[in-house]
Amino acid sequence: MSNLIYGHHPVVEAIEAGQPVEKVFFQQGLRGELEKEIRHLTKAHGIPLQVVPKEKLNKLVRGNHQGVAAWLALVEYQALEDILPFVFEQGQIPLFLLLDGITDVRNFGAICRSAECAGAHAVIVPQSGAAPANEEAMKASAGALARIRLCRVRSVFSTVEWLQEAGVQVVATALTQQSVPLFEVDFTVPTAILMGSEGDGLHPKLLKMADHRVKIPQATDFDSYNVSVAAGICLYETLRQRAGL
Amino acid sequence: MSNLIYGHHPVVEAIEAGQPVEKVFFQQGLRGELEKEIRHLTKAHGIPLQVVPKEKLNKLVRGNHQGVAAWLALVEYQALEDILPFVFEQGQIPLFLLLDGITDVRNFGAICRSAECAGAHAVIVPQSGAAPANEEAMKASAGALARIRLCRVRSVFSTVEWLQEAGVQVVATALTQQSVPLFEVDFTVPTAILMGSEGDGLHPKLLKMADHRVKIPQATDFDSYNVSVAAGICLYETLRQRAGL
Repeated sequence: MSNLIYGHHPVVEAIEAGQPVEKVFFQQGLRGELEKEIRHLTKAHGIPLQVVPKEKLNKLVRGNHQGVAAWLALVEYQALEDILPFVFEQGQIPLFLLLDGITDVRNFGAICRSAECAGAHAVIVPQSGAAPANEEAMKASAGALARIRLCRVRSVFSTVEWLQEAGVQVVATALTQQSVPLFEVDFTVPTAILMGSEGDGLHPKLLKMADHRVKIPQATDFDSYNVSVAAGICLYETLRQRAGL
Repeated sequence: MSNLIYGHHPVVEAIEAGQPVEKVFFQQGLRGELEKEIRHLTKAHGIPLQVVPKEKLNKLVRGNHQGVAAWLALVEYQALEDILPFVFEQGQIPLFLLLDGITDVRNFGAICRSAECAGAHAVIVPQSGAAPANEEAMKASAGALARIRLCRVRSVFSTVEWLQEAGVQVVATALTQQSVPLFEVDFTVPTAILMGSEGDGLHPKLLKMADHRVKIPQATDFDSYNVSVAAGICLYETLRQRAGL
């Protein structure tokens, strides 16, 4: 892999230069100025920091890593705060996908592909617990990952609040008893579709915060749709409703 | 792999006993009674027969294969001719997925999962040029492959004709100029949704034979939806329309 950098100066310089960094690995137990600097920089730039045993770094890097390494991202992350006003200015109706806990790289890539086809304005993922935007995700997205706007946020909770205050409704997909069929919700207004992981679903607090809880109709009680299929269906329903405007 | 059988008698007996056979491999250049028998049996039972060099069989089998081997299928194939009258008798509106040229095992599995969720009455695949119903497909289907009815047909062309004569409309998905948006077609009548491969799309003759040609709306000109996402969207649109009945 060519997009791994390591050593004190290369990592610090990449972050300070605003290069898209996917994740920083930092050696467990290492204290001092370097630790302070890396903690401060990753926090300021919203970059995930993972503390790992020295052995993990040794395995990752064939060279003198000095206790720190970083994956450069394949794509540049953008700030949601910059995108939303731009979409409104263009006279478009905002459409976002907000992913929580989707760690499967192929699902993430497939969702980005559908999002790009449907003209979603951004895919939003949390800093931690999200699939990396790596080469496998790029492949699964058929290249859409290089085109769709991608935002990385510190907290899904605060993002839901922020969106709602900005006039964007948040629609959570969940197979709960209070969920209404997808087509009963109005998607012609500014919307963020909130999707959780297949295994655990969405956090109860997120479900409660959302403006609507929807389920995709099923004719049988078999399990559920794959999360990337479910995302595609939600995007389709939005386009179908907006086609009538 | 435990579901490979080989040798003259085991293979012939499996087929004659009606065991679900995925595919038969036969040694290139082998002539005589065995060849005639295998050709006759596979044809009569609608089982794909692949002629392969001896080296391929030697690689596949650790034992005396006598020029013939067979993969047993994980699932039993059913006859479409048996399913359709049953669906009508139950007072249900038939819903089928007819797949042509979908060779990717994961896509095939994902489609079966959506089909089972949406209560499709069967997934129909051609004898040749289809993804095998193997363990990887089973995994990608989250087990749906063991529940959904699966039909294997000799020709997609004749199946389209047969369905139409039986009162089932065939709706082809294709990004062609004459295609209408998915939601403009009436899915409340007996329907088979015909999906082609992502790369090549559907054969022009099949497109022409279909009662309708539909496209899934896109907001950008980016590529297209993944075929398993597209199948999920078509199934959703059907359920949405039928929910209003």
